[in-house]
Amino acid sequence: MEVSNRFITIKNHVDGAPKESDFEIKAAALPLTLQPGSTDIIVKTLYVSIDPYQLNRMKTASSSHGTSSYSVAVNPGEAIDAYGVAKVVVSGNPHFEKDDLVVGIFSWGEYCVVKPGGMIRKFDPMGFPLSYQVGVLGFSGLTAYAGFFEVCKPKKGDKVFVSTASGSVGHLVGQYAKLFGCYVVGSAGSKEKVAVLKEKLGFDNAFNYKEETDLKATLKRYFPDGIDIYFDNVGAEMQEAAVANMNVFGRVAVCGIISEYINGGRRAAPEMLDIVYKRIKMQGFLAADHFDVHGDFVSTTCDHLRTGKIHPLDDISTGVESIPSAFIGLFRGHNIGKKMVQIAEE
Amino acid sequence: MEVSNRFITIKNHVDGAPKESDFEIKAAALPLTLQPGSTDIIVKTLYVSIDPYQLNRMKTASSSHGTSSYSVAVNPGEAIDAYGVAKVVVSGNPHFEKDDLVVGIFSWGEYCVVKPGGMIRKFDPMGFPLSYQVGVLGFSGLTAYAGFFEVCKPKKGDKVFVSTASGSVGHLVGQYAKLFGCYVVGSAGSKEKVAVLKEKLGFDNAFNYKEETDLKATLKRYFPDGIDIYFDNVGAEMQEAAVANMNVFGRVAVCGIISEYINGGRRAAPEMLDIVYKRIKMQGFLAADHFDVHGDFVSTTCDHLRTGKIHPLDDISTGVESIPSAFIGLFRGHNIGKKMVQIAEE
Repeated sequence: MEVSNRFITIKNHVDGAPKESDFEIKAAALPLTLQPGSTDIIVKTLYVSIDPYQLNRMKTASSSHGTSSYSVAVNPGEAIDAYGVAKVVVSGNPHFEKDDLVVGIFSWGEYCVVKPGGMIRKFDPMGFPLSYQVGVLGFSGLTAYAGFFEVCKPKKGDKVFVSTASGSVGHLVGQYAKLFGCYVVGSAGSKEKVAVLKEKLGFDNAFNYKEETDLKATLKRYFPDGIDIYFDNVGAEMQEAAVANMNVFGRVAVCGIISEYINGGRRAAPEMLDIVYKRIKMQGFLAADHFDVHGDFVSTTCDHLRTGKIHPLDDISTGVESIPSAFIGLFRGHNIGKKMVQIAEE
Repeated sequence: MEVSNRFITIKNHVDGAPKESDFEIKAAALPLTLQPGSTDIIVKTLYVSIDPYQLNRMKTASSSHGTSSYSVAVNPGEAIDAYGVAKVVVSGNPHFEKDDLVVGIFSWGEYCVVKPGGMIRKFDPMGFPLSYQVGVLGFSGLTAYAGFFEVCKPKKGDKVFVSTASGSVGHLVGQYAKLFGCYVVGSAGSKEKVAVLKEKLGFDNAFNYKEETDLKATLKRYFPDGIDIYFDNVGAEMQEAAVANMNVFGRVAVCGIISEYINGGRRAAPEMLDIVYKRIKMQGFLAADHFDVHGDFVSTTCDHLRTGKIHPLDDISTGVESIPSAFIGLFRGHNIGKKMVQIAEE
């Protein structure tokens, strides 16, 4: 049997904010059979993750930032790999068989051939929606959990500020922080998002940064006693304002810097005198470095999900052809929660 | 007995780089006796430390950076407190007596009255010059030791870059790093300083940043395998270049940022994508937070001094009237090693 595998690619390296014309959908014939002796695995994609960091990989200069797979360049015309949930169609690997549910690095397409050494893992849905494997129980969840607990090293009562707080990671960080006993304020880019944070997710407070003109003063208002932990998803002016309002021994976890992903965006220049005098620790991190806490993360998060203490927000578009607009929407603030695309029904 | 106590003060809050006209010398009558029941201690100053951070205290805006004593504003007309070595003249405190040698926070003047609660401690010179108590065995030494070992957490073989490497802290960091088994390169602002680093202090290499036009390329040349640790004494472009050349899991200890002390100096805007993807930790620190390692620091450093493995550089001017030019010289790159002023002979 052979299928026509539709997948998304870039037509050119992306410059500035991504737009529809940067992308195209392609189709390639894919036999759903393996050569004798092949240890490849062919999977049918169910859900794929749509993440801002992918933009960095679409720029020409992307290869300069370290050696992580997060920064491997995407080339025009090629399939774009991405985290996702899939179902095994055919397997030459004895550890996997047809119809296994798997998570791993697949692609923005309908099918994907996973080569030996590729990242793929079976999972048990444990009664939860499959989308949770991309969001709250996937990389976004691990990023939130490890970033908050391992990098920020919170203490009960800490004052926590989360930017892009209605985003894929931010909305979970805020909830972990609340459950841990912290005071939590989030920033987001619309009235609707602010309402979700306050009314649905239990943030102590939230504000629409687009309505603010002086972020330093804004944070001073929301944190009269200062900020102990800043979970940074945006960089730029917001990071500077957070550092200015930070308490001694404050911690900044730099998770994402969406405002700086677009070329020409203003870079953060936090006041280094604050960094020194307030002994601030600023640390970049990737969830992939924290698989040692993966077991804790899954068991803790499943408990919270079962008892209704964590509310994951999944923002799901449908169909491989919706991937470009889903991705572009990330940079226009369209998503609330974890953006993903459902490619097929289970 | 009464003396005329000469001391240095600022005439106005300092704006930009400090200049001679910002300072004046004053004299005030000081009785060298105490009121009955007083627990004050009057000391005669021998050496005082001359530190760049004092400039921040001389600006009007200085009080906004945390709550540390490092940032308490200096007011025009008042004596300026500073770390130093002194001899007790008269004591109302039963733990101190006449002629005790002490270190502590005294002032840029000939005499100082230490009130109850003031920072003062007796010391044994252990056969070393008294100036060592201000430099290698004082705050500069502790800053270098704690900053390097506690904040940077070095491993043998780490590639270490030190800026202002011939400065009070930098020249010691480089030597600790070499003794620990690291590869060490320093930057400084003159041929003479570079020669001292390479020929006298045993740095693996050093360069004059004033002769360089592209610091990123310069550091790439000196660190073809990347930087593991950057001990930052300058901030600005140098910090950005170091971050760009950093290896994964690199550490930046932010000790001082002399290039940013002067108002209007360009602030560091390190590439946050590097911080995230390379999981860089950037941390400000103050020696005062690391008194837990003071015992180790003193015993280790004394051993190195006795065996001739550490060469402390003390840059000593003489006389209270030389304090302003000594201080101003810090911002013009005049000092090599720890700048201090000897106020009186023992």
